[in-house]
Amino acid sequence: MTVSVRHPLDSFFNPASIAIIGASRDTHKIPGLLLAFLRKNQFSGAIYPVNPNYPDIDGLTCYPSLGAIGEPIDLAIVIIPARVVLGALEDCARLGVKHAIIISSGFAEEGGDSIAMQDQIAALAKRTGIRISGPNAEGYYNQIAGIAATFSPTVDVKPDQPLLVATKKRIGIVAQSGGIGFAIYNRAKALGIALSTVISTGNESDLGAGEFLDYMVQDPATDVILLFIEGIRDVDKFLSAARKAAEIGKPVIVTKVGRSGAGERAAASHTASMAGWTAAYDAVFARYGFIVSNDLDEAVSIAAVLTTSPLPKGERVAVVTVSGGAGIWGADAVSAQGLQVPELSEGVQATIRGLIPSYGSPRNPIDITAQAVHSGGLQKTIELLDKSDEVDAILVVISLSSETRMPFKTPELKPVIAAQRKPIVFWSYTLPSNFARSGLAESGVVVLSGLAHVSVAMRRLVDHARFELAQPVVEAAHVPADLAKHLTARTLSEHDSKTLLQMAGVALPNEILVADKTALVAAVSKVGFPLVMKIQSRDIPHKSEVSGVKINIATNEEAAAAYDALIASAQMHRPQAVLQGVLVSPMAKKGVEIIVGTLLDRTFGPMVMVGLGGVTTELFKDVVYRPAPVSAHEASEMLNGLEGAPLLNGFRGAPHADVSVAAALIAQISQLAAQLKGEVAEIELNPVLVHPVGEGVTIVDALVVRKA
Amino acid sequence: MTVSVRHPLDSFFNPASIAIIGASRDTHKIPGLLLAFLRKNQFSGAIYPVNPNYPDIDGLTCYPSLGAIGEPIDLAIVIIPARVVLGALEDCARLGVKHAIIISSGFAEEGGDSIAMQDQIAALAKRTGIRISGPNAEGYYNQIAGIAATFSPTVDVKPDQPLLVATKKRIGIVAQSGGIGFAIYNRAKALGIALSTVISTGNESDLGAGEFLDYMVQDPATDVILLFIEGIRDVDKFLSAARKAAEIGKPVIVTKVGRSGAGERAAASHTASMAGWTAAYDAVFARYGFIVSNDLDEAVSIAAVLTTSPLPKGERVAVVTVSGGAGIWGADAVSAQGLQVPELSEGVQATIRGLIPSYGSPRNPIDITAQAVHSGGLQKTIELLDKSDEVDAILVVISLSSETRMPFKTPELKPVIAAQRKPIVFWSYTLPSNFARSGLAESGVVVLSGLAHVSVAMRRLVDHARFELAQPVVEAAHVPADLAKHLTARTLSEHDSKTLLQMAGVALPNEILVADKTALVAAVSKVGFPLVMKIQSRDIPHKSEVSGVKINIATNEEAAAAYDALIASAQMHRPQAVLQGVLVSPMAKKGVEIIVGTLLDRTFGPMVMVGLGGVTTELFKDVVYRPAPVSAHEASEMLNGLEGAPLLNGFRGAPHADVSVAAALIAQISQLAAQLKGEVAEIELNPVLVHPVGEGVTIVDALVVRKA
Repeated sequence: MTVSVRHPLDSFFNPASIAIIGASRDTHKIPGLLLAFLRKNQFSGAIYPVNPNYPDIDGLTCYPSLGAIGEPIDLAIVIIPARVVLGALEDCARLGVKHAIIISSGFAEEGGDSIAMQDQIAALAKRTGIRISGPNAEGYYNQIAGIAATFSPTVDVKPDQPLLVATKKRIGIVAQSGGIGFAIYNRAKALGIALSTVISTGNESDLGAGEFLDYMVQDPATDVILLFIEGIRDVDKFLSAARKAAEIGKPVIVTKVGRSGAGERAAASHTASMAGWTAAYDAVFARYGFIVSNDLDEAVSIAAVLTTSPLPKGERVAVVTVSGGAGIWGADAVSAQGLQVPELSEGVQATIRGLIPSYGSPRNPIDITAQAVHSGGLQKTIELLDKSDEVDAILVVISLSSETRMPFKTPELKPVIAAQRKPIVFWSYTLPSNFARSGLAESGVVVLSGLAHVSVAMRRLVDHARFELAQPVVEAAHVPADLAKHLTARTLSEHDSKTLLQMAGVALPNEILVADKTALVAAVSKVGFPLVMKIQSRDIPHKSEVSGVKINIATNEEAAAAYDALIASAQMHRPQAVLQGVLVSPMAKKGVEIIVGTLLDRTFGPMVMVGLGGVTTELFKDVVYRPAPVSAHEASEMLNGLEGAPLLNGFRGAPHADVSVAAALIAQISQLAAQLKGEVAEIELNPVLVHPVGEGVTIVDALVVRKA
Repeated sequence: MTVSVRHPLDSFFNPASIAIIGASRDTHKIPGLLLAFLRKNQFSGAIYPVNPNYPDIDGLTCYPSLGAIGEPIDLAIVIIPARVVLGALEDCARLGVKHAIIISSGFAEEGGDSIAMQDQIAALAKRTGIRISGPNAEGYYNQIAGIAATFSPTVDVKPDQPLLVATKKRIGIVAQSGGIGFAIYNRAKALGIALSTVISTGNESDLGAGEFLDYMVQDPATDVILLFIEGIRDVDKFLSAARKAAEIGKPVIVTKVGRSGAGERAAASHTASMAGWTAAYDAVFARYGFIVSNDLDEAVSIAAVLTTSPLPKGERVAVVTVSGGAGIWGADAVSAQGLQVPELSEGVQATIRGLIPSYGSPRNPIDITAQAVHSGGLQKTIELLDKSDEVDAILVVISLSSETRMPFKTPELKPVIAAQRKPIVFWSYTLPSNFARSGLAESGVVVLSGLAHVSVAMRRLVDHARFELAQPVVEAAHVPADLAKHLTARTLSEHDSKTLLQMAGVALPNEILVADKTALVAAVSKVGFPLVMKIQSRDIPHKSEVSGVKINIATNEEAAAAYDALIASAQMHRPQAVLQGVLVSPMAKKGVEIIVGTLLDRTFGPMVMVGLGGVTTELFKDVVYRPAPVSAHEASEMLNGLEGAPLLNGFRGAPHADVSVAAALIAQISQLAAQLKGEVAEIELNPVLVHPVGEGVTIVDALVVRKA
């Protein structure tokens, strides 16, 4: 038996007593709905309505003030005008109320003076220790304990609509939009997916999405987490919760909105969130194996598969169908997600052939035909495939629109599902009837209706099973203490940048800065032909714009001419520029071009990126980001994550590139960026040439930008 | 008044009399269901059950044989064992029955002898003129006339479930899978989309999907067509119907399955279809502006938008939301489809500000807040945006799960929708209730539930509005009659290939084949330095594999050495190869690399493709296909359709490439391939260098492959 440590939010989500400050008798409005839903969902603790205008509400004593209650209160739900909220919270703090949810609107989301009111609430929480959710929140619903601390109509109890429950596992939902948080619940409920708790976080004056995520991660009743975010405010709590989730393998399905220009514009103002740069969010999600989804039904379908299925051991899918065309479509759809639909062995085919009519097909997709549904062939084929080691998952393609006939007998199907060894996913090409949904729910089956979502869900299940959390970087690159003194300008020249990198231990080509033409011959002889010469100036960030690069220089005469030409051209194009001189470098050996860069994200700090050179990065946006620092192992996974990765791995007979050295460089640069995050805004190595295995890499050009 | 010409299938879909050969009293099985559904849907014509075992069925006289009926019969539905079907059809033909649908299975889809039975049916149709659908078909349902010539449970009539109709426009469905065809109907019906007719085509012994498509295209009752195909058999009819649809602007939403290896494997056997190469299908769909969809709900969402909306004039979308988070998501989703969500002018914003609370936002997404729903702000904002010339479409983001409250008053909304100037699309983030669906249906609104599908649908609507049908190629390239005599081998050498192309009028570089070293100096002086030398042999299709190319040759000495090296290398690597000599070519000027190719598809014949050279074609699969021939105009659209198109259009300051000359070349090659489709299997120009505008193109290498 494990002893579970109580989470600070345990009594927020499982309060023994709740006060509703601003409770009302009018059940058509929010204050009245809050009380009504709390009671309809049969909250078992004490409820204290607070409102000086009523002696009682619906049979409950109504208190003129919080102080009049005289009993300990775990949670206060506050639904009074914005300008009197702070006073009420001061009362709460004084009387020892542990938690509050401010439903009221009119704070930071309004802008202007209202922002200050919210700041005062945050300060109160910090000062007194009361934990506050909201303002502008829609509250939460804890399905296990039956606590509806929300006015969302989705928690209304309708006696004529029995709750459909198909899963033993439960989802928990953390949403920065009440509308969407409860819409996720609404859609999951319709499929029969059980809930632990859904919480809408509102303006997050105190309690933020990161802290609520942390609660869900440690909550033993929550098996799969759905997260809807506009922008994370409590970043450290979020990151630590994300790591915990990844460590214990609890799946997190995340939707991040504010990705488009218009969306970001709105998210930046809406509930005063911190919508950040999307690529940084996606990099963080990738690090912790979060499952990104940009569609409600897709996210819920992924949750359905995760709450009903064991993890698959591989990516081989058997498609079992009652309709030829629908089965082909099913095979296409999972194949489009990169899953395999292998032909089955002759032995397995022969066994299936015995279970289906002659015009069926035992190959894969396995067309058992409509006739084999009621003859038991469908059930037996599923059992056979669940035991077979030729596939890792089963997609059952079927029509479940009937309101009278069921394709399975519950006493037969239920034990198979209960003991299933691999995912068995049910897709109905007709709209599933409630009859079929509830009938199959008894066996623990969730019926899915959207094929594209089903195939994405199966893909994500495979990805989740394979995900390995990157080890944190233990031994970081050594950075000399005085490195920052080399940040002599906002944008360093190539030579300055490379000097800084060299001081930090980065291996660079043997190059010489020639500030005076008299030093050229000596420099050239040290570097050796053929060579490259490049103008150097802190005022010329883009050398190509001033014809500032000469390549393939093979003689002293060419070198001298190049020197003059470079200086003259720079002086002509940028007469004001202060020139440092000309950098003399060896011509690099051939290699695959990559770009390695770092930058500072305003939410998550240092990020490292890698892309392939040339058009793939610029035109096809084929780049991978991760939060810095990364280990060499994680860096090599970044390289493998590029669409263009085959270019590094012996594409069309080319030699394999020295990926391990490239990965080590990416790791080193990422660690440098992390350690210098206070001083350095950007590092860009562009291009880096990755030579054949054993020959390492060459950093051709480099740029370091100081933090503004 | 227009006089409409009757279509040959008019009396197939609108028969005055129907015989059911094999009718039964057992309404749990297909023969009984056919009769039951026909009657429940209130077929108004004569019904003649045929079965020697019954005197009557459910009050209708049952005839011992077809001959016993003694009345003209427009349609016979055949549901008897496979081996007696042919005899029954012979009776039909003899007695002047116009059409038959064979529901029975056990023909080509079984393989073996059963294929011959189907061939005999096809021959009977051809011989006698009776038109036959099936075998192995699921029949059709004509909703307008109430004719349910099918056993699909989706046409069952349930008095307690009133039909939801939100659209005036109607969809028609042609499906090569009965399961999917009626599933499309099932899902469209649930949304309130009206149907003209759904037909499942079965094995297509006689009537094929192309002919049924032709019916739907000319059918004035069908406004939008949904097509589900595994493989087209009646290709010419299909293509002519596709062109007609494009000419009159009737949208066709198509799903083509059998795209994956497993799917194609199954489709190739299933109902003996001709699943072809998917890229060729997509090329045909692109030419005729078909809207491709790979998901049922997505296809139906597209149909919903097409049946409710006028075409948009542009791609600017206003997102109107009652929930901040959901609105941001809406803006993200349509933006992800390349649509614009522009900020509104100060004037429009000011007007909206007057309609919504202070904590709402009049920007775009326009957050009117939940409060403005019932105050009328939502309705007024929609009206305002419909009149505004700042947006081309409106996405209304709303929660419609309530079973008691409606956000609109029908008398107010209905006239706005009836007079709408632009698409107004409704997305509910919670699951829409039937109450909301039927309430809004009165105003002509279809409520959609999947955001990803909604945004794809809005994108497709814009694409459909913009689509222009390519003019057929009138003046084709001149091809000398004796061109085929140059096809001297299965795979021609580069020189042979170029000779053939030159004879056909294709402009090629000034090159000389040197078969004897003594001719080298003269050849070199004619071509001029710098030059390229390439080994030529019909036995060496890949010159690089034998180090068969030397570039940048600048002197006679280098040329002589190169000649020897090329011959020696070829002899070493391919001792058996017959060498033609060495091709001496000028070094091509710089240019953007493209690949132009043609091939023969087994379904649609000659196809032309274009891609950008290098990794974009091989790694990113960035290629565009069209059926050959194409005009230069269509060819330039192919080039613009490449993801990498910016490379041709002045990417990062490079000169604009001579796209018009490249397009003319693509057109010329496509016309050549079309004219030589009897002799030539493939033409590949790889690479073609597209030089800066005014400098044309250079075909660097070419390969022609003879038809096997």
